[in-house]
Amino acid sequence: MSGVLAVDSGGSGLRVVLAVDGGRVTAPLTSREPVRTGPRGIDAGHLLEQLVPMARRLTAETGVEGLRAIAIGAAGLTTLGDSLRAELPSALARELGVRRLALVADAVTAYTGALGQRVGAVVAAGTGMIAIGTDLKSWRRADGWGHLLGDCGSGAWIGRAGLEAALRADDGRPGGSSSLLGRAEEMFGSASALPGQLYPRSDRPAVLASFAPEVAACAGDDPVAADILATAARHIADSAAAVCPDEAPGEIQVALTGGLFRMGDPLLEPLRAALAERLPHARQVPAAGDPLDGAVRIAVDLADDRLTLPRDESMLYVVTDAAEPPDSHRPTHAP
Amino acid sequence: MSGVLAVDSGGSGLRVVLAVDGGRVTAPLTSREPVRTGPRGIDAGHLLEQLVPMARRLTAETGVEGLRAIAIGAAGLTTLGDSLRAELPSALARELGVRRLALVADAVTAYTGALGQRVGAVVAAGTGMIAIGTDLKSWRRADGWGHLLGDCGSGAWIGRAGLEAALRADDGRPGGSSSLLGRAEEMFGSASALPGQLYPRSDRPAVLASFAPEVAACAGDDPVAADILATAARHIADSAAAVCPDEAPGEIQVALTGGLFRMGDPLLEPLRAALAERLPHARQVPAAGDPLDGAVRIAVDLADDRLTLPRDESMLYVVTDAAEPPDSHRPTHAP
Repeated sequence: MSGVLAVDSGGSGLRVVLAVDGGRVTAPLTSREPVRTGPRGIDAGHLLEQLVPMARRLTAETGVEGLRAIAIGAAGLTTLGDSLRAELPSALARELGVRRLALVADAVTAYTGALGQRVGAVVAAGTGMIAIGTDLKSWRRADGWGHLLGDCGSGAWIGRAGLEAALRADDGRPGGSSSLLGRAEEMFGSASALPGQLYPRSDRPAVLASFAPEVAACAGDDPVAADILATAARHIADSAAAVCPDEAPGEIQVALTGGLFRMGDPLLEPLRAALAERLPHARQVPAAGDPLDGAVRIAVDLADDRLTLPRDESMLYVVTDAAEPPDSHRPTHAP
Repeated sequence: MSGVLAVDSGGSGLRVVLAVDGGRVTAPLTSREPVRTGPRGIDAGHLLEQLVPMARRLTAETGVEGLRAIAIGAAGLTTLGDSLRAELPSALARELGVRRLALVADAVTAYTGALGQRVGAVVAAGTGMIAIGTDLKSWRRADGWGHLLGDCGSGAWIGRAGLEAALRADDGRPGGSSSLLGRAEEMFGSASALPGQLYPRSDRPAVLASFAPEVAACAGDDPVAADILATAARHIADSAAAVCPDEAPGEIQVALTGGLFRMGDPLLEPLRAALAERLPHARQVPAAGDPLDGAVRIAVDLADDRLTLPRDESMLYVVTDAAEPPDSHRPTHAP
């Protein structure tokens, strides 16, 4: 029996599943340790150290003997993926005997999980925000620039705007919201305590995003909070429109995926309206699955020679005949 | 002959001058090392290590034998000044024989340098932005919350907005500016190189602010850049209006101080208009001097018992009879 391996590598660690031929997919194994980023980008050795034992455990547990393909979705692949592209194909051929490999930007696994191999646009949003679209000839990306340069409409963006409105109320400046100030005082103790609880931290975007649900909770009664969410919705729709194909032979679909949208109607209502206005030719559909589902789909289609998504070194890098290096009789990355 | 000592402690180190009775003020001595901030706030020992030798050198060079007062303007005094308030009075009494001491928030030295002991409002802006005003009974402060929570209209705010507009153009999203994109590519190499040159740095606000002059340079021809500066001007005027007294027996003055305003007319023209609209009862005047001038003024008036500015532990903390601790026969902070 053979199968394929799918991996999602992100800010909270690795998730790995094995899809057995015929369709059964294992429950994900997870490592809580995010893959390190060093001066050469994402650390291929650190990824392998975690992935290889998890893959061996999954193949042993399922009785799978041959891995036909592996798809690895990785945050940062576009800008920090050089060492993954250089080292993973031969290392995984050697360690796991797998010859077909896809290295996939996390935006592309999100896209594929949500829409599959179909023309359209997907917005993936949580603490950050990125939009990605394809006409099946090439990929287009918008935003995803991080909390200081963009990610407009993301959790960090909404939370930051909410905290600014809270502090405007504390100062007596225009644009303030006393209900957001009340929420911020509950969460951080007092307005004056807030800078000291934000700036020294290394996870500032997550701290900002932790306030986004408070903005949603206030939006029913508070016009400042409602306006923040309406503006976020417009920014998200602008990014979706920037990547969505204008025309296609078939139907064009647009989907939303990621933790931000669990915020529910306070964001989704203005967002549905903004998408309908900006993309009247596209049909809004629910995301079929998450990024790990997208990685499974890519691995299965790669194994079966049915992968029709556009290939691109930084978005979807495919190797179909990975060989062990001739001098690799033993693992060189072992301690 | 006696004199007073004035100190400005900020992000680029200490500046110290001695004002000799009769009015002569020495050229500033400068240390390039910013005073450290530790778990107990601003490190009083680190400030003393730098200040005491500079003070001794100034008194020796001028022939001054008695220091009648010292005023220390310090960034972060409001939130991080506990150890300064606890340790500096007795330490400076012991080391320099000075009994009168003022610990002054940098916003208050900026105010006093710009307007003196007078009713009004001052905006101090560079990388950050804070507004401060007084009716001579109490101080009012607005903004100064840092680059993620506020500092609306500051250099970091303008530069960040300009870079966002550049990346919007790169993505094909609305609100983009191709001239700002051109400037960003010149400064950072390419749009895709920008995140890697910003996020790993510890001086992110300064990196953002370094782009503000490019926004000003584009504002003549580019409506997006002009709109960023007009919005910054409104934010700055909102902060000034939040702290400016509504009425006073005499004239109410408003002044601008700090490096941001060297940007010139692209910012100053909309700002003068916004201040005239928001504060029609206040007269716009040039700042008379800088924060170090303000510290000199406070030290001289404290020595002569003429300090009428409102006292407040976190804004203007005054000790008039500092005593050496009884057990202080030798410097305890020496290595």
